[in-house]
Amino acid sequence: MRILMLNPNMTEAMTDRLVETAARVASPGTVLSRATAPRGFPYISSRAEAQIAGAITLEMLSERQGQFDAAIIAAFGDPGLVAARELFDQPVIGMSEAAMLTSLMLGKRFGIVSFAARMAPWYEECVEMHGLMGRCAGVFCLDEPFTSVADVASEKSEALVGLSTKAIAGGADVIILAGAPLAGLAAEVAHLVPVPLVDQAQAALKQAETLAALKPHKARAGRFQRPPAKPSHGLARVLAARISHDDDPSSGGKHG
Amino acid sequence: MRILMLNPNMTEAMTDRLVETAARVASPGTVLSRATAPRGFPYISSRAEAQIAGAITLEMLSERQGQFDAAIIAAFGDPGLVAARELFDQPVIGMSEAAMLTSLMLGKRFGIVSFAARMAPWYEECVEMHGLMGRCAGVFCLDEPFTSVADVASEKSEALVGLSTKAIAGGADVIILAGAPLAGLAAEVAHLVPVPLVDQAQAALKQAETLAALKPHKARAGRFQRPPAKPSHGLARVLAARISHDDDPSSGGKHG
Amino acid sequence: MRILMLNPNMTEAMTDRLVETAARVASPGTVLSRATAPRGFPYISSRAEAQIAGAITLEMLSERQGQFDAAIIAAFGDPGLVAARELFDQPVIGMSEAAMLTSLMLGKRFGIVSFAARMAPWYEECVEMHGLMGRCAGVFCLDEPFTSVADVASEKSEALVGLSTKAIAGGADVIILAGAPLAGLAAEVAHLVPVPLVDQAQAALKQAETLAALKPHKARAGRFQRPPAKPSHGLARVLAARISHDDDPSSGGKHG
Amino acid sequence: MRILMLNPNMTEAMTDRLVETAARVASPGTVLSRATAPRGFPYISSRAEAQIAGAITLEMLSERQGQFDAAIIAAFGDPGLVAARELFDQPVIGMSEAAMLTSLMLGKRFGIVSFAARMAPWYEECVEMHGLMGRCAGVFCLDEPFTSVADVASEKSEALVGLSTKAIAGGADVIILAGAPLAGLAAEVAHLVPVPLVDQAQAALKQAETLAALKPHKARAGRFQRPPAKPSHGLARVLAARISHDDDPSSGGKHG
Amino acid sequence: MRILMLNPNMTEAMTDRLVETAARVASPGTVLSRATAPRGFPYISSRAEAQIAGAITLEMLSERQGQFDAAIIAAFGDPGLVAARELFDQPVIGMSEAAMLTSLMLGKRFGIVSFAARMAPWYEECVEMHGLMGRCAGVFCLDEPFTSVADVASEKSEALVGLSTKAIAGGADVIILAGAPLAGLAAEVAHLVPVPLVDQAQAALKQAETLAALKPHKARAGRFQRPPAKPSHGLARVLAARISHDDDPSSGGKHG
Amino acid sequence: MRILMLNPNMTEAMTDRLVETAARVASPGTVLSRATAPRGFPYISSRAEAQIAGAITLEMLSERQGQFDAAIIAAFGDPGLVAARELFDQPVIGMSEAAMLTSLMLGKRFGIVSFAARMAPWYEECVEMHGLMGRCAGVFCLDEPFTSVADVASEKSEALVGLSTKAIAGGADVIILAGAPLAGLAAEVAHLVPVPLVDQAQAALKQAETLAALKPHKARAGRFQRPPAKPSHGLARVLAARISHDDDPSSGGKHG
Repeated sequence: MRILMLNPNMTEAMTDRLVETAARVASPGTVLSRATAPRGFPYISSRAEAQIAGAITLEMLSERQGQFDAAIIAAFGDPGLVAARELFDQPVIGMSEAAMLTSLMLGKRFGIVSFAARMAPWYEECVEMHGLMGRCAGVFCLDEPFTSVADVASEKSEALVGLSTKAIAGGADVIILAGAPLAGLAAEVAHLVPVPLVDQAQAALKQAETLAALKPHKARAGRFQRPPAKPSHGLARVLAARISHDDDPSSGGKHG
Repeated sequence: MRILMLNPNMTEAMTDRLVETAARVASPGTVLSRATAPRGFPYISSRAEAQIAGAITLEMLSERQGQFDAAIIAAFGDPGLVAARELFDQPVIGMSEAAMLTSLMLGKRFGIVSFAARMAPWYEECVEMHGLMGRCAGVFCLDEPFTSVADVASEKSEALVGLSTKAIAGGADVIILAGAPLAGLAAEVAHLVPVPLVDQAQAALKQAETLAALKPHKARAGRFQRPPAKPSHGLARVLAARISHDDDPSSGGKHG
Repeated sequence: MRILMLNPNMTEAMTDRLVETAARVASPGTVLSRATAPRGFPYISSRAEAQIAGAITLEMLSERQGQFDAAIIAAFGDPGLVAARELFDQPVIGMSEAAMLTSLMLGKRFGIVSFAARMAPWYEECVEMHGLMGRCAGVFCLDEPFTSVADVASEKSEALVGLSTKAIAGGADVIILAGAPLAGLAAEVAHLVPVPLVDQAQAALKQAETLAALKPHKARAGRFQRPPAKPSHGLARVLAARISHDDDPSSGGKHG
Repeated sequence: MRILMLNPNMTEAMTDRLVETAARVASPGTVLSRATAPRGFPYISSRAEAQIAGAITLEMLSERQGQFDAAIIAAFGDPGLVAARELFDQPVIGMSEAAMLTSLMLGKRFGIVSFAARMAPWYEECVEMHGLMGRCAGVFCLDEPFTSVADVASEKSEALVGLSTKAIAGGADVIILAGAPLAGLAAEVAHLVPVPLVDQAQAALKQAETLAALKPHKARAGRFQRPPAKPSHGLARVLAARISHDDDPSSGGKHG
Repeated sequence: MRILMLNPNMTEAMTDRLVETAARVASPGTVLSRATAPRGFPYISSRAEAQIAGAITLEMLSERQGQFDAAIIAAFGDPGLVAARELFDQPVIGMSEAAMLTSLMLGKRFGIVSFAARMAPWYEECVEMHGLMGRCAGVFCLDEPFTSVADVASEKSEALVGLSTKAIAGGADVIILAGAPLAGLAAEVAHLVPVPLVDQAQAALKQAETLAALKPHKARAGRFQRPPAKPSHGLARVLAARISHDDDPSSGGKHG
Repeated sequence: MRILMLNPNMTEAMTDRLVETAARVASPGTVLSRATAPRGFPYISSRAEAQIAGAITLEMLSERQGQFDAAIIAAFGDPGLVAARELFDQPVIGMSEAAMLTSLMLGKRFGIVSFAARMAPWYEECVEMHGLMGRCAGVFCLDEPFTSVADVASEKSEALVGLSTKAIAGGADVIILAGAPLAGLAAEVAHLVPVPLVDQAQAALKQAETLAALKPHKARAGRFQRPPAKPSHGLARVLAARISHDDDPSSGGKHG
């Protein structure tokens, strides 16, 4: 099965980190491909940036249709997830969604632990969007400067372990170290944290495999059926084609 | 006070309708300006389209900074609202937000009545985003073909009155006729509906006046402070400048 | 348009303060009238007092029917609001309701900050009555003696700013300085608080203008239709007449 | 133990019915006294009427202090309950509260079944006030004329049984026949309804006995401590004395 | 009326304590019988233990059918309650359920105070099972060693009073001292705690009397009707008979 | 990785069905073992039966410790899940839990469709236990006789497809055909249902693989740490040993 790790951020090193971490738990037979945002931001950290990056995510998925059995939107916060799930035929999974759902099987409440206070509102809204506030012990973020997004996992490793302890005191039974730059950190610090840790990239890979194995067909009814063909102006060509149904040879195109 | 009626749809006639309807209840001294999306869709009706149009809304607001005291995102569903509220210094209001909040002063539960079933998931998520499900009696949509978005208000006037009756039976104390193409319809059919009707364009105008009059300062703390300067690639120039803080003469720009 | 500022407390100086504060943001053409409770309490601060003052509010509104286009119940806690909305034909707005709804357009969660711990249960129940707990960061009250209700705004100005900071740390994106004695304080301390402040009297005035401009008709169905005529014994004459429909020349009275 | 059955309605026959029904399940040693509202309404059926009757309830309780070990506010909807619980030293129980809490021990969700559609909004708000919506299958009301409140129980007996069946289909595991005029009906129709019925008057009597037996002391902290002494103007003398603490010999009165 | 105090724990001294405490508030005419678990655990304190003890509770009830008018499952956490309510014809009440429902008539939020941190998850799930989280200020547990379960009430009396104060600061209007070993402690420390205390054993006895007096018939519809006859293998004989309906002489047995 | 499919029902044919269905989506390298309840019920269908079967599930898991990397409790309703998760070191997953979490990645709300009305209360409580009511469109059950549990999937195939259509009309975006006897049916009818179907056995297998691959360590803090050693009486020997920590060679046993 072909899984696409789609990084809505522009930083290649982050994609490397996500793919390498995920690959460690891939099943035999899983082929993991990758994509890094060609435009947008080095690292998304606000809801304004996520609004824009979510639209770019749709462009990236349009370009890769037919090339994956399931795709992962690999930014915690899941930019563009609902739109993508509506628009595309193959399963699309959010990295935070996957981490949260996986953590639910290991405890009553998960705690989200991350490295920068400004991500908290976005992450909280992500938890709400998924309807999981009742099973979330909170979003716990460091509020101190760091040198670079690339190295924040190692630089702040100890502080994040400390913050995990606070999350546990606050009711967390499982910890998610959140934000693409922290992919892979869980394995390194698991022995220092007294509750299970869920790695977001690995959880996402396994959940993508799950959906690819189950092969659900695209909804033809309900909230996630494909929207009817719609003309547009000024969009990336492949995305416009997806939206106008001109990507669909059998349809002959709905709008000329 | 200067109020901007910003239509994230590309259809000028719809902007006309919104502005004319709103102008009927404007206070003396209110100057109502307008903007219509230069790219995107004739009429947004899915969450995928809203993801894209929300990003375009940010471009439109960036271009008009300093030209308004409060802005209205005049598409029911409020595309880009949270992002805009984070990014800009002046109050930004969603048309559905304004209609819902206004309706809360007229009843316990509002009913949203609209003309096309495919808008329902988007509208429902909008109600959830605003945390108002507990005061919403439901989203009630016609499920029948219509000739054109431009004329749907008059074509379906009678059917929408009938659907309002169903919404009342379902617990609605107030009715919102939702979707920009229905702006102005409330006044025409109010005598046919036994509960108050709230016109979305008029509610939005009055709420924009409210905020413009109260002159709240931009948050410097909490969830809606402006995100720190961030470089970007491939965005509309004015939006990139807003995000990199290069639009701010006093800052000298954070990113060259 | 004629707006009635109805103070359910007996203190005239408090009514002065409310009217003066509100007048600063009134639209041209707004005529602001006033009423102060002729009986009841100098200042309501418990739910028992609110139960009684709410009934007195109904008497005050009965006496002034036909003299306003919208009325404000100007005590935080909104005594008698639901009853008044049911009983009268013109829009009636609660001052806390108006402040809360207005604040929702400026942040995700509002914080209510006030000067006396004993108001907290009443204010909390008011938030619950309006179904807005999910958007409230909490009710934060000073718990220290003050000299007089008349001067508490200036006496405790600094302490209230300090408490606002705690409310922000507790998740508030907007602050409401609550309780009629604090009307007008927001403008004085806005520069000291890093999130927007909403003045309750001004928000109430603007929301009353909003409803007066929209001219919703009285509900003839749903939860807020006028109750059928009912005889009574021992009530204020005008209120009894409103309840028995004897105030309505066209009805001829339902009960002799 | 002395239990006061306090009827906030003015109809003596209704008080008779409540007392007779309750007496059938009284413990040996229980002395059941009674009070009927001296002013207000023959039968409360709106929230406006409940606002007023709730204040009258406080007067009635003030007059009878020291004469009961627990009091029942015997109108479904519990007018004045929160205020009374705050103001008085002995336990005060609402008749709908008692019926609902008792029903929780017999099923997951209770259904409220009553005889007039116009009571529904008030009863629903009562369920919400008690925070029990999650365990309520709904408020089900007949919507048809009836001859008199005095005889509605027998006149509509069959229709109410039919409506109970609808409530069961709607998820009710227990039925409460609600509204003082229906006191005693449960015993007559229990064999016709396939789920347990809870009689409101009997549940209230047993819950009042429960509290009277447990002898909880009055709260001196928290939301239900007695409010500090407060002067007033224009209130019933005994109620004013209770509020000013002049009813309390040991205090010497706080306000002359 | 015959009330069964059923202790799912194996410790006789605990049953003594429960029965003696309850007997102090019993009505004249109440006959209080008792049962102590013949197998299982000395004292249940985890959800795994409650899963097992709940099944044993069903055996104990099966053996005593026809010998009680109402039964109390006298372990805080209510092991087996839902199953018992489904399976048996007479009312069965949980001790925590009774304590919580009783406390709701004395305040808005109750606080659960207990002596061992490891009970907290179980007690919290019990509150959730009853749908009462919105009226619970929290579960507050000591986290310190104690000598024996038998003497923990007197050993930790002072610490539990201190913890009650924290619960009040956390929003509790009423305190429940939870866990069978604390039965009877409320009366001893009530004067030291400024809000009402509810004794779990006494509340349970009074609520059992309430249901026994109301004599509700067994549900023949809804969620609590008796499950159809079912064969089983390896269960206690009386429980198997109850489940196969072979305990019912009139049925002739459904499964031979 | 070794996955245990544990059937809490006594019917071997049902275990066959579950294992065969799951095996179709197993990853290379997955070894799927099986267990069928040695005592209890042929097929659990009430909460009383689930209370008992949940305790038996703990016995079955105790016997197989060290023989699996993750275990599935393969009865919809998840009997004993919370207890098992507390008690054992390896991940334990409920079949309904797995189906629901998987379905969340395919739609906003899942619908549970099953073949017998009497399962509905149990299944609903299972959804509540997992905190997922907000994402559940409802539990939809046939209410008509069927020949045997073994053949109900084929006998009622058409009726279940029809009921799925009702669930979709009621808001379901994904359908779970629930109850062990329906394992494998999803693949057969997927083409007849316009939204994705999630097969419970396959979802459970993939989620078990997910946890086995992630290798979370057992919680040493929070709600799911292992309870301290506890003596017991009358339990199955291996279960008693697990509970007394005598199964743990390194501990030397806590209770002799």
